[in-house]
Formats: sequence, structure tokens, C-alpha cells
Amino acid sequence: MFEKFEAHIAAYADLTQDELKYMRSLSATRKLRRRQLLLQEGEVCRCKTFVTKGLLRTYYAREDGTEHVMRFAAENSWMVDHESYNNQTPSRYNIEALEDTEVILWTRENFDRLLIAIPAVRELSERLKSNSLDASQDRIRMNISYTAEEKYQAFVTSFPDIFRRVPLHMVASYLGVSRETLSRVRHAQLKRQRENGVV
Amino acid sequence: MFEKFEAHIAAYADLTQDELKYMRSLSATRKLRRRQLLLQEGEVCRCKTFVTKGLLRTYYAREDGTEHVMRFAAENSWMVDHESYNNQTPSRYNIEALEDTEVILWTRENFDRLLIAIPAVRELSERLKSNSLDASQDRIRMNISYTAEEKYQAFVTSFPDIFRRVPLHMVASYLGVSRETLSRVRHAQLKRQRENGVV
Repeated sequence: MFEKFEAHIAAYADLTQDELKYMRSLSATRKLRRRQLLLQEGEVCRCKTFVTKGLLRTYYAREDGTEHVMRFAAENSWMVDHESYNNQTPSRYNIEALEDTEVILWTRENFDRLLIAIPAVRELSERLKSNSLDASQDRIRMNISYTAEEKYQAFVTSFPDIFRRVPLHMVASYLGVSRETLSRVRHAQLKRQRENGVV
Repeated sequence: MFEKFEAHIAAYADLTQDELKYMRSLSATRKLRRRQLLLQEGEVCRCKTFVTKGLLRTYYAREDGTEHVMRFAAENSWMVDHESYNNQTPSRYNIEALEDTEVILWTRENFDRLLIAIPAVRELSERLKSNSLDASQDRIRMNISYTAEEKYQAFVTSFPDIFRRVPLHMVASYLGVSRETLSRVRHAQLKRQRENGVV
């Protein structure tokens, strides 16, 4: 499992063999079955997670039973509830495997050791946080300014692979539009594509 | 103007008089009239800004003429387009003064010097970025899961001072709900409060 991480990380951080060995020695691995939870609302998010196989979602469950998808993370992505991890406070969220999934985990204590010992890990970590912030801002921009059709289109364009792997109602939930609206948007678009001979 | 910054920052970072003097020596100040732009879409966001007086908004303007408020920043807040500042790429946003406003500015070059020279500035900067990320995540959560009424209520509770200082259509724009919906929500709420004898 760690070989997949090594292959991925090489493109993002310049790590020596010794540094990789140290990262590995402080890591743990875990396999999750489809529908299994990696983190449950109310628990503290104690680990930074790297997905080597499968697909996770972070979702927010309301008392009325509705579920709202905050994030998807497929293989070669990091997943963490930043707020809970950083402040060691109970998480508002659940992290669930949508497919059989394999992850590498570092506890906060161990990851903090890596941040001190390996400058490249520190740089990577800061870059990932910056990217998360930019992506969050961009999602807020789309949330507040895009029509349902534009939101759908942006999702399909940005995450074609995720789009193929998750049910449409989860895409609707991620976008903050109703399932009915998204079905309508999708049908209208498929109809236009047929008329234009694209499909 | 810098005295206001010193008074504010004392609660957030442990800075010596020499460090404050150095921060001041690398800063500039600017006064903006109401409606004046601090940053225009397409320009690179070259400075980190601290508001000492007044109120700024960051907004995204669409081709159809609609404006979408990404953020408000009143006195004692920082304001920056993180993505543009970080990557030195053209901004998608405009930053405008909603009141006569006074700001302290540091160019990226100068702020980077501070980050290297003063550990407390580096820590503060990382904490601010972390807080921005958490706040962004929380806003996304509300965007995708809250009703218009809940969004309105959360805004009034979290930002009572901003709520009093900006027109309702900008609150609607910030929340990503239509002006009509927000008026309806507000009237329904005022009516309930009158019936309950709150107002």
C-alpha cells in the first residue's frame, strides 16, 4: 500500500529514501469495506489520511435525516476534517467509504513529528492547506453565484471520474441543489446533446 | 493608524517593540472613500491588508451584471484574495470600500520578509489561514444544507455588526439567496417576533 503513496508523492515533494522510510515507520494502514465509517460525527479526527484505493466521502447529517456531502476523496487524495484535527474537537462530520477503500493514516502526533523532521513534508502540508483554501473559496463562489445547471456542469468538468463513480443524488447533495432539480438539469442537457448530435 | 493595528495585534501575537517597529517600517497606509476599489478584477492582489477603520467587501461580478459577495471585512480584520496573492495571478474579485475606510498594507515581498524575520508573524499567519479554511468549510456546510431562513439566522447571529451596516440585498448576495426570498424570510421572522412580544 505504501508503494502507491511513494509513487504519488514523488511528483509533489522531494523526499529521500530515508525520509520515506521514516514516514512509513510512523504510518498505519486500514482497509474499509463499502459503507464503513472512517470517522463518525462527535469523534475527534485523530489522523491525516491518504487514500491509496477506493473512494471516501465526508458528509454532514442533519437531524431530519438529510445528508450533505462536503467532499469526495478518491485514490491519491488526502482526507482530513481540518477543524477537528487541528483543534482536537469533536467532528461535525462523518467520513464513509463509498467503495472498498484502503488508506494510510498518520496520527496527529506522528504527523507533527514529520512536519518538524522533514522540511519537504512541511512545505507540502502548507501547499495542501493553501490549495484547500483556494478550492473552498472557489466552491463558495460557485455556491452563491451559479445556477443549478452551471453547478452541475462545473462538477462534471472538474471531477469526471468521481461523477462516474457516485450516485446522482450525492452529486446533488454536494452541489446543494435538490435531487429533482439536478435530474431536470441533467435531462435537459442530455436532450440538447442528442439534438446537437453529441450523443 | 498603526496604533490601532498595534492595539489589535497584541491580543493575537506576542511581538516586541522592535518587531512592531519593523512591521511598521515595511507597511503602507491608504484611505479609501466609500465605493472606491482597493482591488479590481483582473489585477494581481499584491498586498495583505488590515482594516483599521470602515468596511470592505470582496465581490464577484458576473457578465449578467449580478454581484456576489464573497466576504465582508470590518475594522480589525485582514483582507486578501488568497489565491491571487499566493500565486500572483489575476484576481477574479473586486474589493470595494462600503464605507470610508482606512487600511494598512504590506506588499507580498515585504510580508514575506516579516514571515522570515518574526516567528510570531509566521505563527499568526498560519493560524489566520487555518481559521479561514475552517470558516470556509463551515460556510460551504451552511450553503449546501441550510434553508434560506437558517442561513439568514446564522448570518445575523454571527455578524450582528455587519448586518446593521450593509444593505439587505448584499446579505442576500453573500448567502446566495435571492433578494425576494430574503425579504420574505425577514418579514416572516419579524412577524413571529412581534407575535411573541420580542419586538
